[in-house]
Amino acid sequence: MSLSGLDLMARADELAAITSGPGLTRLYLTPEHKAANDLVSRWMQEAGMAVHIDAVGNVVGRYEGERPGLPALMLGSHLDTVRDAGRYDGMLGVLSAIACVADLNARGRRLPFAIEVVGFGDEEGVRFQSTLIGSRAVAGTLDRGLLRNCDSDGVSMADALTAFGLDPNRIGSAVRRPEEVAAYVELHIEQGPVLEREGIPVGIVTGIAGATRLEVTLTGEAGHAGTVPMHLRCDALAAAAEMVLAVEEECSGRGRVVGTVGRLSVSPGAGNVIPGEVRFSVDIRSDQDEQRQERVNTVIDRFDEIAEGRRMGLQYRVTHDSPAVACSPRLMARLSEAARAEGIEAPELLSGAGHDAMAMTPLCEIGMLFVRCRGGISHNPAESITAEDAETGARVLLRFIENFEG
Amino acid sequence: MSLSGLDLMARADELAAITSGPGLTRLYLTPEHKAANDLVSRWMQEAGMAVHIDAVGNVVGRYEGERPGLPALMLGSHLDTVRDAGRYDGMLGVLSAIACVADLNARGRRLPFAIEVVGFGDEEGVRFQSTLIGSRAVAGTLDRGLLRNCDSDGVSMADALTAFGLDPNRIGSAVRRPEEVAAYVELHIEQGPVLEREGIPVGIVTGIAGATRLEVTLTGEAGHAGTVPMHLRCDALAAAAEMVLAVEEECSGRGRVVGTVGRLSVSPGAGNVIPGEVRFSVDIRSDQDEQRQERVNTVIDRFDEIAEGRRMGLQYRVTHDSPAVACSPRLMARLSEAARAEGIEAPELLSGAGHDAMAMTPLCEIGMLFVRCRGGISHNPAESITAEDAETGARVLLRFIENFEG
Repeated sequence: MSLSGLDLMARADELAAITSGPGLTRLYLTPEHKAANDLVSRWMQEAGMAVHIDAVGNVVGRYEGERPGLPALMLGSHLDTVRDAGRYDGMLGVLSAIACVADLNARGRRLPFAIEVVGFGDEEGVRFQSTLIGSRAVAGTLDRGLLRNCDSDGVSMADALTAFGLDPNRIGSAVRRPEEVAAYVELHIEQGPVLEREGIPVGIVTGIAGATRLEVTLTGEAGHAGTVPMHLRCDALAAAAEMVLAVEEECSGRGRVVGTVGRLSVSPGAGNVIPGEVRFSVDIRSDQDEQRQERVNTVIDRFDEIAEGRRMGLQYRVTHDSPAVACSPRLMARLSEAARAEGIEAPELLSGAGHDAMAMTPLCEIGMLFVRCRGGISHNPAESITAEDAETGARVLLRFIENFEG
Repeated sequence: MSLSGLDLMARADELAAITSGPGLTRLYLTPEHKAANDLVSRWMQEAGMAVHIDAVGNVVGRYEGERPGLPALMLGSHLDTVRDAGRYDGMLGVLSAIACVADLNARGRRLPFAIEVVGFGDEEGVRFQSTLIGSRAVAGTLDRGLLRNCDSDGVSMADALTAFGLDPNRIGSAVRRPEEVAAYVELHIEQGPVLEREGIPVGIVTGIAGATRLEVTLTGEAGHAGTVPMHLRCDALAAAAEMVLAVEEECSGRGRVVGTVGRLSVSPGAGNVIPGEVRFSVDIRSDQDEQRQERVNTVIDRFDEIAEGRRMGLQYRVTHDSPAVACSPRLMARLSEAARAEGIEAPELLSGAGHDAMAMTPLCEIGMLFVRCRGGISHNPAESITAEDAETGARVLLRFIENFEG
């Protein structure tokens, strides 16, 4: 086996140099996307794969099995990024898969199934306000209405496809049939702190959490910070503070639910003015859909009580609601065995973040391997992994591939 | 007596038309300031006053008493505004005082003291990050270091004075001597809800609250909203929420203390990221300096406990600390008598907001008359008073002037 962690790191650096800035920013259907596809295509070809760009701009490399046309084990992740991103989120999965195929190819090893490596064009959803465009197109669940979504410059997704050299009327041809795909397995950095705390380089993902997101607006009454007695106030920030703590309380100590208020803005927002309006986001996730829904309902009940107690206007809307997705027990077992063969007792852990694998479930069973990252930091230039862990991840993936039975 | 509320309202509208936008925005030492001074100068001259612009840009009109050179009863308020301001905050005090002098002048009435009406150039402090520049210059407490403060375009106050036609080296000549000024009396809209609730058009101010302002920075740990278990989080917003509620709790039900968190910003501020840093302002006021200081200390103790309990970095600095200022009992009594003569039992009330009168205390005794405003709303285009209340305020002020004994 000739997998090199340093080579993987060098390729991640080379990909990260393709950016429109600030930092690493590479959005769907941009010139940078095309440049990344070109570079990845070259690496795929060098690894012995036949490469094409599919109808939504995903780059797909195919390594035939013992005979042409066998169903494929599909591997990969995404090549797009958030703004000012890290260089491993998404990319590491694509680079590791290419390295595995390169190793097989160097040894002339053909398997009883084909391998396809996909670099999805959009997972983060930064440009067209809709995530997982690449994988949903492949799984056949992409809503064609998305073609009318516009980026911040007013360019529609349809026009962006055309500018990229694709035909928006033919995006249906990216869809794969279930009989073509044996499974989808994605290696990804953890983006969380669990593996680092446990001191283990890789983990087996049990599933991807379902998520509910709310946008909340609280309307109180602005007033002069010096002149309105406390008992006459209707302070929207004080009410919001109670709600932030209610989210924390209701989502703590209850299994694998997490709840976050990540965004909060105060209006008018001056030191000497009582806040008249506060808007904030709520994000609640769990691998148990019932538990999540129950927590969402309880949080909303608490919000109602708090708003009523403070004579405050409360509006909220659900902006996102996705069910949890389970990884295939069969694939989890095979990934565990592969880790064990590398001397690692890989812990099972839930993915709180969404991934392309989530979108692939209508098409095939899915599995995910997490690689430890420093401090759980992601979506940030400080995202960091070690070359050693990158190599370990690729080795486990390669063992998994070689033991896979189609 | 020929005071007309409608005339006062019309002049407030005319002044409000002098703005650099948005809405009514008129900052110190700008072309709009000059235009406002010109208009007010004309009104002062029409009212029989001799007018000059002092060394910091205040417009000063003098109406001599029974003989030239008598000590002056000084009346007035400020002509500058916050951004997108109301049209009565400050201006009503200047316009009412001019109307009173116009009435005396029309009757040929001279008093055993002079009257000076001042339109202060800066009270709000929007341009040079320092409030009460106009009145502090007159009282002789202006720090010359302020001349180096720059506005958001990098223009220093010294350069702005020069551009306004003034000499920054001569700002000391704006200072008045105690023997020249018998008292300073300011009519101002209440900017609070008390008079409206009591159904009374004017109130007698007992004093101006002391204020302490803090800037607080909380440093937690940012992380992915889906991947970090609740018990491993160090959520800066959850800690800030506890602190917002601590300010509310510690400042409620304790006499005339008020406490406000008016500004709060979350970083990085994305719905799917645990807040890593929160900054917020705290504003605590009271007419009792000891009580205020005790509340500030208690709030800071609570902040320390909360930060420690959550293993959170906490930094704060005191950005403002001003003692309470008492109005003169003699002037309060005379203002009450004047109100009573108009058929009004004017309640006594504390000013939670700062006013030019506050800065005048080193020079002379001060008195303030508050006029009811709608909903206590100020620093906002919705600031509103009735012509009837404007007239009542001016009538009470005129009676006060005529009964003043120097």
